[in-house]
Amino acid sequence: MSEQEKEAALPSKENFSEWYNDILQKGEIMDVRYPVKGLYVWYPFGFNLRRNVYEIIRKLLDKDHQETLFPLLIPENEFMKEAEHIKGFEDEVYWVTHGGTTPLDIKLALRPTSETAIYPMYRLWIRSHADLPLKLYQIVNTFRYETKHTRPLIRLREITSFKEAHTVHATWDDAAAQVDEAIRIYTEFYRRLAIPVLPSKRPDWDKFPGADYTIATDALMPDGKTLQVGTAHHLGDNFARTFDIQYEDAEGEQVYVHQTCYGISERSVAALISIHGDDKGLVMPPEVAPVQVVIIPIIFGEAGDVLRACEKVRDALEAEGIRVRLDAGDSRPGAKYYKWEMKGVPVRLEIGPRDLRNNAAMLVRRDTGEKQQVPLDNIGNEVLARFSAIQDALYEKAKKELDRRILDCMSLDEVKGNLSKGIVKVFWCGEKDCGLKLEEEVGAGILGIPTGQECCQGKCVVCGADADTMVYVARTY
Amino acid sequence: MSEQEKEAALPSKENFSEWYNDILQKGEIMDVRYPVKGLYVWYPFGFNLRRNVYEIIRKLLDKDHQETLFPLLIPENEFMKEAEHIKGFEDEVYWVTHGGTTPLDIKLALRPTSETAIYPMYRLWIRSHADLPLKLYQIVNTFRYETKHTRPLIRLREITSFKEAHTVHATWDDAAAQVDEAIRIYTEFYRRLAIPVLPSKRPDWDKFPGADYTIATDALMPDGKTLQVGTAHHLGDNFARTFDIQYEDAEGEQVYVHQTCYGISERSVAALISIHGDDKGLVMPPEVAPVQVVIIPIIFGEAGDVLRACEKVRDALEAEGIRVRLDAGDSRPGAKYYKWEMKGVPVRLEIGPRDLRNNAAMLVRRDTGEKQQVPLDNIGNEVLARFSAIQDALYEKAKKELDRRILDCMSLDEVKGNLSKGIVKVFWCGEKDCGLKLEEEVGAGILGIPTGQECCQGKCVVCGADADTMVYVARTY
Repeated sequence: MSEQEKEAALPSKENFSEWYNDILQKGEIMDVRYPVKGLYVWYPFGFNLRRNVYEIIRKLLDKDHQETLFPLLIPENEFMKEAEHIKGFEDEVYWVTHGGTTPLDIKLALRPTSETAIYPMYRLWIRSHADLPLKLYQIVNTFRYETKHTRPLIRLREITSFKEAHTVHATWDDAAAQVDEAIRIYTEFYRRLAIPVLPSKRPDWDKFPGADYTIATDALMPDGKTLQVGTAHHLGDNFARTFDIQYEDAEGEQVYVHQTCYGISERSVAALISIHGDDKGLVMPPEVAPVQVVIIPIIFGEAGDVLRACEKVRDALEAEGIRVRLDAGDSRPGAKYYKWEMKGVPVRLEIGPRDLRNNAAMLVRRDTGEKQQVPLDNIGNEVLARFSAIQDALYEKAKKELDRRILDCMSLDEVKGNLSKGIVKVFWCGEKDCGLKLEEEVGAGILGIPTGQECCQGKCVVCGADADTMVYVARTY
Repeated sequence: MSEQEKEAALPSKENFSEWYNDILQKGEIMDVRYPVKGLYVWYPFGFNLRRNVYEIIRKLLDKDHQETLFPLLIPENEFMKEAEHIKGFEDEVYWVTHGGTTPLDIKLALRPTSETAIYPMYRLWIRSHADLPLKLYQIVNTFRYETKHTRPLIRLREITSFKEAHTVHATWDDAAAQVDEAIRIYTEFYRRLAIPVLPSKRPDWDKFPGADYTIATDALMPDGKTLQVGTAHHLGDNFARTFDIQYEDAEGEQVYVHQTCYGISERSVAALISIHGDDKGLVMPPEVAPVQVVIIPIIFGEAGDVLRACEKVRDALEAEGIRVRLDAGDSRPGAKYYKWEMKGVPVRLEIGPRDLRNNAAMLVRRDTGEKQQVPLDNIGNEVLARFSAIQDALYEKAKKELDRRILDCMSLDEVKGNLSKGIVKVFWCGEKDCGLKLEEEVGAGILGIPTGQECCQGKCVVCGADADTMVYVARTY
């Protein structure tokens, strides 16, 4: 490693916080130097990753949702309609008060989320049971005046990539089924990013303002803290009553609708970077990697044959729809390896004169470093097979790590001792007092009750009463 | 036509303004009932059209630009740096002044356009000539506190779909070549939407605030007014000096860069709807139509065979990647025709028992109403051939209409008499005084000097002096 490379090297991932800040810059994901706190700039490379990630969620939703777009600005009177909802957001809403030098008659909120922008329109759009279910989503920027420490992709003042879905149903049960469906979609989405997530039902004091209940998915970050990477809310008929959204049922009666909403943000990208990356840089699942294959010619003396072979391979891979880059620049191979490893390119192909004599290339996997000679004939299939192996390996590795770091604990002391290792699971009687006391004593949050839990009997870790559910507890972002 | 259909019918396109407002609602493009002036809601169908339209511009740009994303909020001090730029925008900027109930230390502007958000970062990103040219774009929402009459897709307070490109070059000439390239890209983009556009160099008093010059493209709307549907600005080194963007040239000298920016908005969708639509509703170029083919079963008595044949055709078309809908609902065929004509579906296939006996379908073109029996074998190719014919016919028709409505005029009176018919072309000596007088006398704007004009000699229509350029003059949106 040259002096220059040492200087440019990442901190070890052991120091996760430093590593994270550094990799966003060195991997050209986000530039943190924008002159307003909590606002960041997507580098083109980072935005390319973001495009690929969001393409997946779009395709998953497009099967039975429709994309739409509502205004960013919400008039104060609409925003202030739903009391609980306001309470949840009023301290962190940005207000537009002036147009030019003219004070506005009605202040306009920058949406922190779009219930109060969308539901007045749903009132106009929904007439009869034939209009239900209605399933729309939009991908938009939303705003929170965060007073806590901000962090790129994780805690932002402008969430640049909020995918929010808003569905409307005839009955409470239909809406509940949609919440389950949302969690299923999100789990599949994260599976495609090779990220295992834990869905759990949030405790009542941590649900979405105005919801009947919230189910969220969390990912485990390398430092043992969890990141909430998706939420789905059952809104009951709470907003329907506030915004007067009714439909005429089969008997001709006017009935309030039942609603859900669910969201995903660029935290999905934060989780992907954090969970798969290593001391050498980014590690990308092939499906979302902006560059999927880099070809490095290994040249001694005469370059012609090697370069022509590299170009042929590039063309063959492009014909398979693979995003490939031929790095024929002047740097030495080592510097090129270093650069493309930082960018997380899943597969590197090295082609030199000796490889050519064997009609082969050296294929190197970014995730494992494994090297293998592969024949140039049929190189497309070789690479595609490797993609699928990498995708599986990344998921398996993350899953194993997650499983290893979920720890059953039977006392508060045990909880305290284990929280730095990951997520703990404890019996809880379900009483709010015990829950809040637990959170305070251990300095961590109850994530919630795992969905689909089939549990045994135990004693509440706080009060000792009989308990038949276990909950996840973790330090959270 | 039933009573219900008459009620639901569009006004004639002769009454363009009424027709336009109505078609946005009936064609389910935009809902104008959002409770803030100048803000509108994209219906899912409209947003689908928007996605298809923006997919084209993305693909055109992706050849040698990169997509990126910068923050919406611009701090007052950055925004206020470039004097001319401020003058151009200060009356129409929305200001965020509060986070929650806390007044902000520095007011934040909602971007009206992103020069002042992007260029402080370009200062950090650009070091040497090896970093040039840099060609980035983003697709974002921007804001203008419009005090004039607002109109969906045309004059908005939230421009929801602003595609803005910002490029950086070593020399003034390189930037000038990029402006030409931008206009070439935009012309190709509009060609794909079957819209002929007129590029012209705006007069100096109408250029972008802070630019050396502006070239814009205009489309002719049915009422004879022009709509500016794309602009490209040569920024010289004006912003480079303000934001201190320099590079080290081959000799090791620090030199200011030269820049361009160019933009397109949802006015592209407005032009598409307005130019191609007719008294029956929307008419969509096949490439962007959310539904490209609708299949209507014609059923007398027993439906089984007909329905099965329709499903087979649907599957065959889907296999070709065609966006197809089978409308097997209970309404009578006439009501279905009416509905899908309103939505602008380019091709309708009617399949009844008699067609089946001939192993054929009746193919109806939305643009001409032309009916033709086509064989079911190879139906995919039949439909694709029709798409290409429709695309060409729409463009030819629009081009012919545009050509017909550009009128050479030799006196101010002649100009006044012809402006209601479309665009007039007159000799102008190039003096600002004459230009402003012309605009005032005829109550219309000088669009500019057509790019690539090879002109003759004449007399300025205002002062009578010798003139060697002709300019477009039109009433504008």
